[in-house]
Amino acid sequence: MKIIGVDLGGTFVKIGLVDSLTGKILKKSEIETKVDLGGDTVVKRISDEIKRLTENENYEAVGIGSPGSIDKENGIVKFSPNFPDWNNFPLGPKLSELINKKVYVENDANSFALGEKWFGAGKGKEHIIALTLGTGVGGGIISHNFLITGSTGIGGELGHVIINPNGPLCGCGNYGCLEAYASATAIVRMAKERRKKFPNSLIFQNENISAKVVFDAAKQNDRLALIIRDEVVEALAVAITGFIHTFNPEVIIIGGGVSKAGNILFEPLRKRVDELVMPSFKNTYEILQSPLVENAGILGAASIVLQRENL
Amino acid sequence: MKIIGVDLGGTFVKIGLVDSLTGKILKKSEIETKVDLGGDTVVKRISDEIKRLTENENYEAVGIGSPGSIDKENGIVKFSPNFPDWNNFPLGPKLSELINKKVYVENDANSFALGEKWFGAGKGKEHIIALTLGTGVGGGIISHNFLITGSTGIGGELGHVIINPNGPLCGCGNYGCLEAYASATAIVRMAKERRKKFPNSLIFQNENISAKVVFDAAKQNDRLALIIRDEVVEALAVAITGFIHTFNPEVIIIGGGVSKAGNILFEPLRKRVDELVMPSFKNTYEILQSPLVENAGILGAASIVLQRENL
Repeated sequence: MKIIGVDLGGTFVKIGLVDSLTGKILKKSEIETKVDLGGDTVVKRISDEIKRLTENENYEAVGIGSPGSIDKENGIVKFSPNFPDWNNFPLGPKLSELINKKVYVENDANSFALGEKWFGAGKGKEHIIALTLGTGVGGGIISHNFLITGSTGIGGELGHVIINPNGPLCGCGNYGCLEAYASATAIVRMAKERRKKFPNSLIFQNENISAKVVFDAAKQNDRLALIIRDEVVEALAVAITGFIHTFNPEVIIIGGGVSKAGNILFEPLRKRVDELVMPSFKNTYEILQSPLVENAGILGAASIVLQRENL
Repeated sequence: MKIIGVDLGGTFVKIGLVDSLTGKILKKSEIETKVDLGGDTVVKRISDEIKRLTENENYEAVGIGSPGSIDKENGIVKFSPNFPDWNNFPLGPKLSELINKKVYVENDANSFALGEKWFGAGKGKEHIIALTLGTGVGGGIISHNFLITGSTGIGGELGHVIINPNGPLCGCGNYGCLEAYASATAIVRMAKERRKKFPNSLIFQNENISAKVVFDAAKQNDRLALIIRDEVVEALAVAITGFIHTFNPEVIIIGGGVSKAGNILFEPLRKRVDELVMPSFKNTYEILQSPLVENAGILGAASIVLQRENL
């Protein structure tokens, strides 16, 4: 069966035609979102691109992973920081009307978790915690094979679990959320704040400081970079330990730009979580790097269809 | 329909015959557990008491709420701090053989959550976080109407979510777990630690310091008692905010001895959580004191049957 996955971002929309059995992306395209043109135009542009991509192709349905708070029953974007004008915007129904196919909408962090379950490191698992470490920290929870979204559909905000009330200010207004430690934004902030104390750090040989720059410097044993790495690891370990004690998951999958740091992040993280979990939880879980990388968005979006239609 | 609920404690076993429609306890009895006599004798004593209680009565099945880690599929107590000799003890099957009825076993904190869902403050709700603040802090999670126990059945350990890595040492070996702040044990510890600084506190006019003594003193505006109250509130608020962001529940229900403090605890707690939750979560939840009080154990145990048989 073929499915269209739409990874709706604030700047770009990635669209892929996915073989649901193999998880192979048969065709793929990327267009600008152009949020400024308004919701209807964005939907029209997506519809046009889907039509172009699926000429002479049959496909079953469309899954859209969108940032923000989603009314999944009705395919409505309730609100989204990336689309400030979309208040209760009926994204699913509007697109469905234009392409005459079923359209399922889900929050992008949740769809990342579904993508891992259907095509990634969570294949065959029924208990998955998925974290995306990007500009922010997103969370997706699959427990007993069920996507946990809560009573009004906005649960899974694992980036805004407070792990240290005396920690740094988070964008949400609280102190010490996971996001204030483990997002790319936080990592860059931690570097900049300490420039005076570590002026010779390799980090500052780069014009644009990014999480990648910090982890690359850590790989070269740069002192500041390792200090930051350790803080990120400690924060993630405390949060993940809480998720393990709460959900008793089979796997914690970490994706997003920061996860590309690889072993310099994952090895100390696994060690620290192993120290923190209670004895009965030892060896009940794995902490894995997302294998889907650049395709996580499209595959996640496609797997919304698989999860909802329970195929 | 009538159900037997067995609240299995380390010291006492409470047994009740419950009307499943009304949640009324028709008959009730309490015997000593006598753990020292060994598992088989404990089961025999429970069986004898159930038989005595149900003479000339018909009942459907038995639910047992037991401390420790439970293999619910098979009714086995995998291990329990309260019953140190019970390793993989087949509690359910052994009792079932003696009384010739179906027996369901569940962890006691989970069964507290189920009791609230079927008979208490969570009636008609599908998204419930239940916390018991007693000697330790227990957790039970019902999400999308499903009891969340995780891949090996030991999830829901909400007392061991770390809320401040620089906090006090917890019995589990970590620092700053919720249990290290909000259990009765923690509250007593907080008082004793500060005796030197607050020798005239009302708290120390009592021979035995308990959580009740502390909250009673707080009600009389005792300074130390209010400081402790504030720390308990802050810890609970941080933890509960995390649970709200994670589960988006309809209700957070707090039971156990500490909850009996009532408004002196609940009013500032509600206020603080309201300050901490992200705007989209405001007014999506309630924080309630468990109404089941002394009957929470028996009703929780009885409701295991209702949940499993999906009645």
